[in-house]
Amino acid sequence: MKLREKDSFRKSEGLFFIEGARLCADASLSSVAIKELYVTEGAIEKYSEYISVIENRAERTFVVSDEVAEKLGDTKNPQGVFCVCKMLDKNTNIGKIKYNGKYIALENVTNPSNFGAVVRTAEAVGLDGVIVSGGCDIYNPKSQRAAMGSLFRLDVVQVDDLPPFLSELQEKGMKVYAGVPDSSALKITEADMSGGVVSIIGNEGNGITEETCKVSTPVTIPMQGRAESLNAAAAASILIWEMMR
Amino acid sequence: MKLREKDSFRKSEGLFFIEGARLCADASLSSVAIKELYVTEGAIEKYSEYISVIENRAERTFVVSDEVAEKLGDTKNPQGVFCVCKMLDKNTNIGKIKYNGKYIALENVTNPSNFGAVVRTAEAVGLDGVIVSGGCDIYNPKSQRAAMGSLFRLDVVQVDDLPPFLSELQEKGMKVYAGVPDSSALKITEADMSGGVVSIIGNEGNGITEETCKVSTPVTIPMQGRAESLNAAAAASILIWEMMR
Repeated sequence: MKLREKDSFRKSEGLFFIEGARLCADASLSSVAIKELYVTEGAIEKYSEYISVIENRAERTFVVSDEVAEKLGDTKNPQGVFCVCKMLDKNTNIGKIKYNGKYIALENVTNPSNFGAVVRTAEAVGLDGVIVSGGCDIYNPKSQRAAMGSLFRLDVVQVDDLPPFLSELQEKGMKVYAGVPDSSALKITEADMSGGVVSIIGNEGNGITEETCKVSTPVTIPMQGRAESLNAAAAASILIWEMMR
Repeated sequence: MKLREKDSFRKSEGLFFIEGARLCADASLSSVAIKELYVTEGAIEKYSEYISVIENRAERTFVVSDEVAEKLGDTKNPQGVFCVCKMLDKNTNIGKIKYNGKYIALENVTNPSNFGAVVRTAEAVGLDGVIVSGGCDIYNPKSQRAAMGSLFRLDVVQVDDLPPFLSELQEKGMKVYAGVPDSSALKITEADMSGGVVSIIGNEGNGITEETCKVSTPVTIPMQGRAESLNAAAAASILIWEMMR
């Protein structure tokens, strides 16, 4: 399954592949276009409510055998519900930033499960959106699975060049904080989280780029133990939480 | 590799298998006994400082070929450093609970990567220990990898029957909070986190058992979005953080 396995193939086609009744229904209720629905007889019966939502939106529906579902599935016991969807235009959400809103920005976060988990947390806690620059493909099946549909509900703003974008947001009055594992930085409990705020999480190994650090205020989660730093998803959870608590 | 792949085999033998120069050195610096070190010529050169620490503690050392390392390795490009270690006696840490300390309790958390990530966060933020009841094998290679050595440094207290254990801690003056996705529960920002505290995270799908809920005060992370609940690792990060902030 090229669509499932290759980021580059997904990009050149502008399509992506998702699996699971719930996730496909979440996509169908969003602004994402559903090109094709593949579903087994068993799934039509078992997930009838979801399937009717999806079928309504799908341009074409194919009823497939269990054997085909096994091949399509990324998981051991696939539910037998799959969609080929059209990626949103990269610039869809770029104008949607609310200058008094709360955002988490992910710079070069490469692990799709981390990425998805952060988006899920951001939605649960009530952020206004997620800013993404570099890193993993947001349409990667692992991102989608970890995000549990939140990628279809939350505004995901994709930005090629992060530093000038952040400078612009600062000019509009937003506070921009860079999460760093540096005990001399401002403690997040002392950072002013009122009004519009963007908090940045960097790459799992290398942290936030120098260019991005230059246009933001470094903040840190005070550490006491020996684990060098929190993993990216844990640090993001705490940062997101501090913005909203 | 039976030791790597089978929880039951690990348990009957009382041994577990870890991989990676750093992780094996972390184990060697803890109270875990190292039965065997398997190492390639290349690794001896590349990770000489770690290897000397490990060799000092290992009962036996085997220099193995790269081909054997490939077979032993769980990862694509193994570093060529592996240890067979002796599990700690289950009761090792049970008497070590500090009644004025902060602990996270994991009840039936089944995903080893979640489990390991929580232990890593607990160490980073500075908890006194982790209480584990049911769920995944703490010696699972995925737990070990996600925990990045914190399982060897933090007190991990294994408890078969959690509710009476928690009642006992309460009698000693500790506060016991159960993290639940229930908006009517006490908000965690309003819970008294002074003195000794245990916060419980439940199973990824089913949450905390009724029996455990009965002996604890339900607390909740206020949610605003549609993602039903945070994933277990994200909820744990926030709970751990709230205990220590």
